[in-house]
Amino acid sequence: MPTRLQRLFPPLVWLRGYQRHTLAQDILAACIMTVLVIPQSLAYALLAGLPPETGLYASILPLLGYALFASSRTLAIGPVALIALMSATAVGSIVDQGLAGYGAASLALALLSGVILFCMGAARLGFIANFISHPVISGFITGSALVIIVSQLGSLFGVDTRGANVIALLRSLWTNLASFSLATLAIGGSVIVFLVLARRFARRLLESMKLPPTVASTLARLAPMVAVVATSLLAAGMQLDSQGVAVIGNLPQGLPPLAIPQVTWTLLEALVVPAFLISLVIFVESTSIAHRMAARRGERLDPNQELMGLGAANVTAAFTGGLAVAGGFSRSVVNDEAGAQTQMASVFTAIGIGLVTVFFSGLFYFLPEATLAATIIVAVTTLVDLRGLKDTWRYSRQDGMALVATLLVTLLIGITEGIVVGVGLSLLLYLYRTSRPHIAIVGRIPGTEHFRNEKRYQVETDHRVVIMRVDEAIYFANAQYLEDRIGGVIRQRPEATDLILMCTGVNTIDASALDILDTINTRLQGAGLRFHLSEVKGPVMDKLQTTRFMANLSGRVFLSTFEAWHTLTVRPPQTTTEVAP
Amino acid sequence: MPTRLQRLFPPLVWLRGYQRHTLAQDILAACIMTVLVIPQSLAYALLAGLPPETGLYASILPLLGYALFASSRTLAIGPVALIALMSATAVGSIVDQGLAGYGAASLALALLSGVILFCMGAARLGFIANFISHPVISGFITGSALVIIVSQLGSLFGVDTRGANVIALLRSLWTNLASFSLATLAIGGSVIVFLVLARRFARRLLESMKLPPTVASTLARLAPMVAVVATSLLAAGMQLDSQGVAVIGNLPQGLPPLAIPQVTWTLLEALVVPAFLISLVIFVESTSIAHRMAARRGERLDPNQELMGLGAANVTAAFTGGLAVAGGFSRSVVNDEAGAQTQMASVFTAIGIGLVTVFFSGLFYFLPEATLAATIIVAVTTLVDLRGLKDTWRYSRQDGMALVATLLVTLLIGITEGIVVGVGLSLLLYLYRTSRPHIAIVGRIPGTEHFRNEKRYQVETDHRVVIMRVDEAIYFANAQYLEDRIGGVIRQRPEATDLILMCTGVNTIDASALDILDTINTRLQGAGLRFHLSEVKGPVMDKLQTTRFMANLSGRVFLSTFEAWHTLTVRPPQTTTEVAP
Repeated sequence: MPTRLQRLFPPLVWLRGYQRHTLAQDILAACIMTVLVIPQSLAYALLAGLPPETGLYASILPLLGYALFASSRTLAIGPVALIALMSATAVGSIVDQGLAGYGAASLALALLSGVILFCMGAARLGFIANFISHPVISGFITGSALVIIVSQLGSLFGVDTRGANVIALLRSLWTNLASFSLATLAIGGSVIVFLVLARRFARRLLESMKLPPTVASTLARLAPMVAVVATSLLAAGMQLDSQGVAVIGNLPQGLPPLAIPQVTWTLLEALVVPAFLISLVIFVESTSIAHRMAARRGERLDPNQELMGLGAANVTAAFTGGLAVAGGFSRSVVNDEAGAQTQMASVFTAIGIGLVTVFFSGLFYFLPEATLAATIIVAVTTLVDLRGLKDTWRYSRQDGMALVATLLVTLLIGITEGIVVGVGLSLLLYLYRTSRPHIAIVGRIPGTEHFRNEKRYQVETDHRVVIMRVDEAIYFANAQYLEDRIGGVIRQRPEATDLILMCTGVNTIDASALDILDTINTRLQGAGLRFHLSEVKGPVMDKLQTTRFMANLSGRVFLSTFEAWHTLTVRPPQTTTEVAP
Repeated sequence: MPTRLQRLFPPLVWLRGYQRHTLAQDILAACIMTVLVIPQSLAYALLAGLPPETGLYASILPLLGYALFASSRTLAIGPVALIALMSATAVGSIVDQGLAGYGAASLALALLSGVILFCMGAARLGFIANFISHPVISGFITGSALVIIVSQLGSLFGVDTRGANVIALLRSLWTNLASFSLATLAIGGSVIVFLVLARRFARRLLESMKLPPTVASTLARLAPMVAVVATSLLAAGMQLDSQGVAVIGNLPQGLPPLAIPQVTWTLLEALVVPAFLISLVIFVESTSIAHRMAARRGERLDPNQELMGLGAANVTAAFTGGLAVAGGFSRSVVNDEAGAQTQMASVFTAIGIGLVTVFFSGLFYFLPEATLAATIIVAVTTLVDLRGLKDTWRYSRQDGMALVATLLVTLLIGITEGIVVGVGLSLLLYLYRTSRPHIAIVGRIPGTEHFRNEKRYQVETDHRVVIMRVDEAIYFANAQYLEDRIGGVIRQRPEATDLILMCTGVNTIDASALDILDTINTRLQGAGLRFHLSEVKGPVMDKLQTTRFMANLSGRVFLSTFEAWHTLTVRPPQTTTEVAP
């Protein structure tokens, strides 16, 4: 068993068994990661409305902050598209992009999110991620991806666009479209075509060159870096920056600046709600990736450690001039496929990016912004999941509606509103669904001790003994419905003398339901019926034991429904039972 | 079967069979009701911060508005303490009491609430009342009753108090206490003592005078009217109004004014949230009383008709200068006990109060406000339910916490906040409870086809075939937990080859859960286990049928757990089964 300190800092466990062999694997993965991560980091910084170097800063020390607490061995963190967009929306609503306070507000947002995440982890609130349903997450991701794509069209055409939703972005694009730059569009368009083709064919091409499958698939993922190098050389050779093509320009050389984020009270008040939502999305996105990888590697994930790791990473980002970070899907997959064994791979990646930032940041001067926009567009198209939408809709109309509503609100109103509406809706739909539970009148399958729905099976029933099975926990949202249904049944069967509530599906009875069961008992007594329970689960029975309802109960509690049936239908079966259709 | 028109207007049904005998009973009940309702109506108007006559107006035409749609035969509506307080809080937060706009804002609030209620009924949203748990309602009512009592202390001492919560009210009372009026306190104090004694002994006293029990209990409830008459006579005889005792004074003589409420856009924006909460409380309070009476009389209640009736009543109140109304507990009980058979009793009550308003309103000139405050205090003490708090706490810690939190927030912060916190909390607690469902590893009860928890029963188990029973619908909030638990179990049982998920308690599987079941299947396959389901309920199976999960499933779906056990444990039982403790 690991000690408490080891549980808090998982590296203390795996570093003890760390071997030269693992070290080599981690270093190799880190080299590949460094090359992959640079274009992404620059691109997402621009998406967040920040100078490109902040993306690099966010990919250095925050990786160490995460590694310290992480329970996942191969989750790779850094700037991601969704969080960059949410950050841009939140900060943009209080400071205009390009103004002096914008950067400071972004840092404050990262700090706040980090603190929220860390505290949630320390308070062991990791279960909260489960309160957002998959359809809502899926609708939110698809919607955000579409918003991101539309937001990048401006950079692709070389014009300025602003807006919190697709409609505003498209309108702003339309207004400015006249001043578009042909050279910029040519570069962006070619990169998109190249990346799409690379995704389709590069892997097969490399495999046909006799490279092992994992090497081929890893190299194929480096296509964005190829595009970065090629378009940078082109722009440098043709001096495209003087022909209206926006390029990255000078990046400050040197290590990330260490600075304490300036958080004013006004800023705090304005950012606390967005920071909470961003924390939620950071956590949900990161753990859903980490869960998938842990399942594949047979490892165990501790959501609370993940919260603390992500919190530490974002606090570190805020102190080193970076933007908010999360676990990224593509970088985690590459990290895994490139052979990373532990978070040491991330540590080496951080060192790699640190070296690039210190010595080679001048190389990005001629990198066209359109190349980065194209990279983003191609990357996020994989997040648009229309098949999932179709499958979900077919499986459950309610889940499908939650998905579509989240998607539409995210697209047409804004991403913050999207996640809020989605979460609210999935809770309400769940309540509504359980508020009208499936209640069946059951009968005995002849010759057995089994009781099944009289509408689905050929069963024996008795007109004096009604057996109802309720397929749901009885709680405040559905207890009244149960009372109404029982009332309806006894009105239809005036000869009934006994009603048995079969509780196989009843996993809890809350205080509201207990009140109403007591009312049902009184009501049945008034109508001359005894009220029995059968097959009550152990934990439910334990709680019922000492209640007023049990003291008042006119009938009995039977261990099995068959025992109840046997006891209550005392007459010879041939004259008393009829076979339902 | 009633026609659609008859369903919309229930009087069309019962008026056809209306007989002279029923008419006599209804008229008698109405006479008693008129006498009972007048002090209440005056008192609650003052509680709402309005002129006393508005309480009378609210007890005339709104009764007819309700009767038109009501499915309840004996629910009596009118001003009630809780709604009067909520109205005072909501309106007081935008217009100071006593200012010109206060009355207009109260009418706007009643109108808005009425429209919301009516629309909810028309949209058949009656099920919404079930989304508030009983402990939350109980905490809210107890908390509000205490706030009401404290709010009346000012009138009892003859000083002015203001405040949205108990702390503010007590502080304001303390500040002004120096100027208290001894005569006022004497009157109020005597009335409280008289009413408490009357409640304790009047009924028994009347019964000992050979009156029939129902007559005795009805007469005993008229004690407040006795106090009203006695203190009015006293005040008139001693001219107490000139000695610092606040009296009702001149009431406008004549029928309620017909006027269109002035609803400005600003007013609408400020009142829409409180109006929504007030509608909710009006509906919940009224239907909980109506449900109790319907169950006793064996009648059927239609929540949507109730919503429309309450909506019509409040719209009528707004147009006739009244305050917001709801079903009142004490007036409904008196109505019922006095022998009312139909809503015609309410119609006659309305006529009675109308006559009083037109011809006798001058009689209330000398009625001391302290008498009404004392009436309110004694009436609402019955709403303080400490025994319910104790019972709930003992039955379920979570429900108890929701109750206490609602009570404390209502008391210490405000009643609006109380209901909001309560509703939010009961939802979150429900989610939290279902997010960690009871999962048991089950074994076979020797010699039977029954499978029970291995921790509770002496059962046969097989180290290769693990049977897990999950006692809850599987949905987004608990699916991840199920995956983690299954992961833990297979780590502990490396020799397992088959895992059966026993679905007796699984009433739904939502889209999120379906994703995770698919992940579980993949994960088990990776660990060399087959994944089976047993006893899947019909409706759940119908939906699963066409999914990717079912196509991927490594094992089978068995009708019964016994069949699964029998099929998978093919070796002779004596060598393979061990008996668990």
